[in-house]
Amino acid sequence: MTPLKLRQVAIDTYKENVAYLHRDCPLYRSEGFQALNKIEIKDGEDRPPAIAVLNIVDDDSLVAPDELGLSEQTFAQFGQKERTPVFIDHATPPQSLRAVHAKIAGERLSQADFLKICEDIVRNRYSKIEIAAFLVGCAESGMEREEMLYLTQAMVETGERLNWGEPLVVDKHCIGGIPGNRTTMIIVPIVAAHGMLMPKTSSRAITSPAGTADTMEVLARVNLDLDKLREIVNHQRGFLAWGGTARLAPVDDILISVERPLAMDSKGQMIASILSKKIAAGSTHLLIDIPVGPSAKVHTQAEALRLRKLFEYVGDRAGLQLEVVITDGSQPIGHGIGPALEARDVMRVLENDPRAPLDLKEKALQLAGRILEFDPDVRGGQGYHLARDLLESGRALHKMQDIIAAQGAHAFPPDPAKLEHQVLAPADGMVTAIDNLQIAHIARLAGAPMDKSAGIDLHKKLHDRVSKDEPLYSVYAEFAADFQFAVHATEENNGYTIGMAGTS
Amino acid sequence: MTPLKLRQVAIDTYKENVAYLHRDCPLYRSEGFQALNKIEIKDGEDRPPAIAVLNIVDDDSLVAPDELGLSEQTFAQFGQKERTPVFIDHATPPQSLRAVHAKIAGERLSQADFLKICEDIVRNRYSKIEIAAFLVGCAESGMEREEMLYLTQAMVETGERLNWGEPLVVDKHCIGGIPGNRTTMIIVPIVAAHGMLMPKTSSRAITSPAGTADTMEVLARVNLDLDKLREIVNHQRGFLAWGGTARLAPVDDILISVERPLAMDSKGQMIASILSKKIAAGSTHLLIDIPVGPSAKVHTQAEALRLRKLFEYVGDRAGLQLEVVITDGSQPIGHGIGPALEARDVMRVLENDPRAPLDLKEKALQLAGRILEFDPDVRGGQGYHLARDLLESGRALHKMQDIIAAQGAHAFPPDPAKLEHQVLAPADGMVTAIDNLQIAHIARLAGAPMDKSAGIDLHKKLHDRVSKDEPLYSVYAEFAADFQFAVHATEENNGYTIGMAGTS
Repeated sequence: MTPLKLRQVAIDTYKENVAYLHRDCPLYRSEGFQALNKIEIKDGEDRPPAIAVLNIVDDDSLVAPDELGLSEQTFAQFGQKERTPVFIDHATPPQSLRAVHAKIAGERLSQADFLKICEDIVRNRYSKIEIAAFLVGCAESGMEREEMLYLTQAMVETGERLNWGEPLVVDKHCIGGIPGNRTTMIIVPIVAAHGMLMPKTSSRAITSPAGTADTMEVLARVNLDLDKLREIVNHQRGFLAWGGTARLAPVDDILISVERPLAMDSKGQMIASILSKKIAAGSTHLLIDIPVGPSAKVHTQAEALRLRKLFEYVGDRAGLQLEVVITDGSQPIGHGIGPALEARDVMRVLENDPRAPLDLKEKALQLAGRILEFDPDVRGGQGYHLARDLLESGRALHKMQDIIAAQGAHAFPPDPAKLEHQVLAPADGMVTAIDNLQIAHIARLAGAPMDKSAGIDLHKKLHDRVSKDEPLYSVYAEFAADFQFAVHATEENNGYTIGMAGTS
Repeated sequence: MTPLKLRQVAIDTYKENVAYLHRDCPLYRSEGFQALNKIEIKDGEDRPPAIAVLNIVDDDSLVAPDELGLSEQTFAQFGQKERTPVFIDHATPPQSLRAVHAKIAGERLSQADFLKICEDIVRNRYSKIEIAAFLVGCAESGMEREEMLYLTQAMVETGERLNWGEPLVVDKHCIGGIPGNRTTMIIVPIVAAHGMLMPKTSSRAITSPAGTADTMEVLARVNLDLDKLREIVNHQRGFLAWGGTARLAPVDDILISVERPLAMDSKGQMIASILSKKIAAGSTHLLIDIPVGPSAKVHTQAEALRLRKLFEYVGDRAGLQLEVVITDGSQPIGHGIGPALEARDVMRVLENDPRAPLDLKEKALQLAGRILEFDPDVRGGQGYHLARDLLESGRALHKMQDIIAAQGAHAFPPDPAKLEHQVLAPADGMVTAIDNLQIAHIARLAGAPMDKSAGIDLHKKLHDRVSKDEPLYSVYAEFAADFQFAVHATEENNGYTIGMAGTS
């Protein structure tokens, strides 16, 4: 067969490999290659072939008829220079696709099936649509809890795994959906001040106005390599870093890249995603926070309990000590929403500032208390008091300052956002509901998390009495266009329900 | 918001809309657009927005930071000139995606749900991965027969529908998988010679060595517009054309573009696909051929019966008179496999040539007989004899010659293929099995259907006695490379099982 000349095409197709072939390439029709089909790309040597989905090009300047273009990730993965002679062939579908078809047909998959699927996914042998087929096949109606365990284990095994060399490595995770819920940045210094190991990696916001990594970044560098993180942990017992650099459970990132645009929300997939990342990160003990509320991810106590059982089932069998707490998710936590405003609240709690939001402090102490009780030397029921002592004595603040310095403090906090709009109460009454989703939506429109200072500052919370024209919250934005969008959104729906005082 | 300048990117992304944005475009990060997310593209006017999946570009020559690139189909669909100022926004997911999620969760969908889904798909509001989610959600385990009916009707309603202005318009369909099974080209002239209306559109081969359109094309033009087809039907009562030009059940083509790379094989989807195309093509009466055999698509009689019931259920309710025949699919039909070789067999049957394959003739007469009995004036049980009279009297041949002339006869039949390889019996014995899949695979490797004369000519069929080194079949190819691949494949597995004479 005639070789083609390799060429990089400067298109980022994210987690999907794409190859570009000219319509006049003699191989295009004679070999029956078709758009959207998958092809194998080989050089003359023995290295494993790259797999890519085919797009057809009608522009010689992009890809000439004697060339094969590869999208950026594919080119990097193939690891050959431009103009290398390459051969293409129809890709044999990954063998594990049979298991995906079996799953779709309603069968249970084995541990070996999940491992093979994850191995093929991590080697980019699955196209987006094949991944979508796998995800849908595993959607709630079709996945047993044993299968959640197998998927979790397979996702751990197909990536790197950190080892901190200690028997007790704690972590926490909130399933999310509650704006302002930045307890992690209070819990880590409390727990590390007690001497427990808490090497905390967090994500950036995907659909929320701030992630823990975005918020910590207001105060310190969060993009640190593993050697640096090990050094910090040796001295400080904890850190608050961005988790995006390590290749921990990489299958999870690939699955999420398809799951997100699909707006899928499968419990099995969520459990495997959370637990595989924690196990791969070397955690031995994990506290999971499930907020429940009408506009939280989980709406009812019954649903939360079901989820708790699933977490416990998989956690126990995957060798993770796991506790689940079900918390109040009926409104945002704290006052600020957006990286800088949330960082302000966190520091006020640590500084025992009288302006600190009490609900944020209380929730952080509750969770930290449960984590401290993972320590065999802490008596059952004493965790909360111990956490409060660590916070109120200033030891947690001191630890946070050390962690910030170790990670690299940001000398200049971001400027306050330039534009402010106050949302006023339409009538006298009481706040009877706050819509987490709408508040998060407005904060994002205002620019969070890209603009660190943008977001929302809540002046009134659930059950607060309000008078007509009293400010409910302020919207902050950096840029006029964002400001306009956000203000417009508050006019359509400000997220607050004001009822008669005394009712709810 | 700042407008971007529209630009066409000469990439054919097939049935998926793709938009290209430069990584340095100010909108990219500030608006939170991400690769693989879907965006809406609007001009300043009121026309409906185009929806496309986003790819990120790092090359100014492809798309500049102030431009928005659209793949070929997307650009054509949007229908604006290059450099038109356009605005982009996050696409709201199509509302019907909720129904897809409900389907995935195991719910039954309504007629209205299927219609909305098909409307959104035909307007390109679904990405490939959303279509994959729909297909998997509808896979066998999750689709009731009412839902197959709804999907069929929705696919008809979201496309054009032909009307031939007569109460009896017949068609046939074979679910495929049997090489050489070219009965349609014998049935159409028989049925049209009787005076019944049989406006037959067929597909080209996708995964097989020849489709009816590829085979007819050996003899005549098949790419004809609708006006021409109407004119031919008025004079000849039938034609044999390629069905690819009309916009009949266009959702089906889009679904297939995802289903094929996914190697999905869902009965519900297959039934809706076949019946929607036939109804949209204006057929009133339909004969369906389900071949059964170990290497056919359907392996057992029980499976074929189940499928028959589903066809009957949907057909009856969709207003189609439908008969199903279950036929022998244990080996290829006729001798030739590949367009020219199959056309030769067809013409030998029509010409009553003694070299005509008897099995092809018999099967065509059986099916034609069943179709003739759709005519109220034909007595039940007399169809076969009537078909045989029409064939053996030469009236069917005469009709075929008229149809070929009307469509535009090809003056020069393709040259015989240059290269021939004979596959010999390894021992004395009897042919006890022929593997349809392997025979089709070898014929495709030899160049069919791209090279019209390439393919296989079978010298021995099931239950034939053979002596050692007697030719089982010949492989024909045009090009040395194809020839080599095909011969190599016969050496690995020639598709024939030779057993002791008298056993099977």
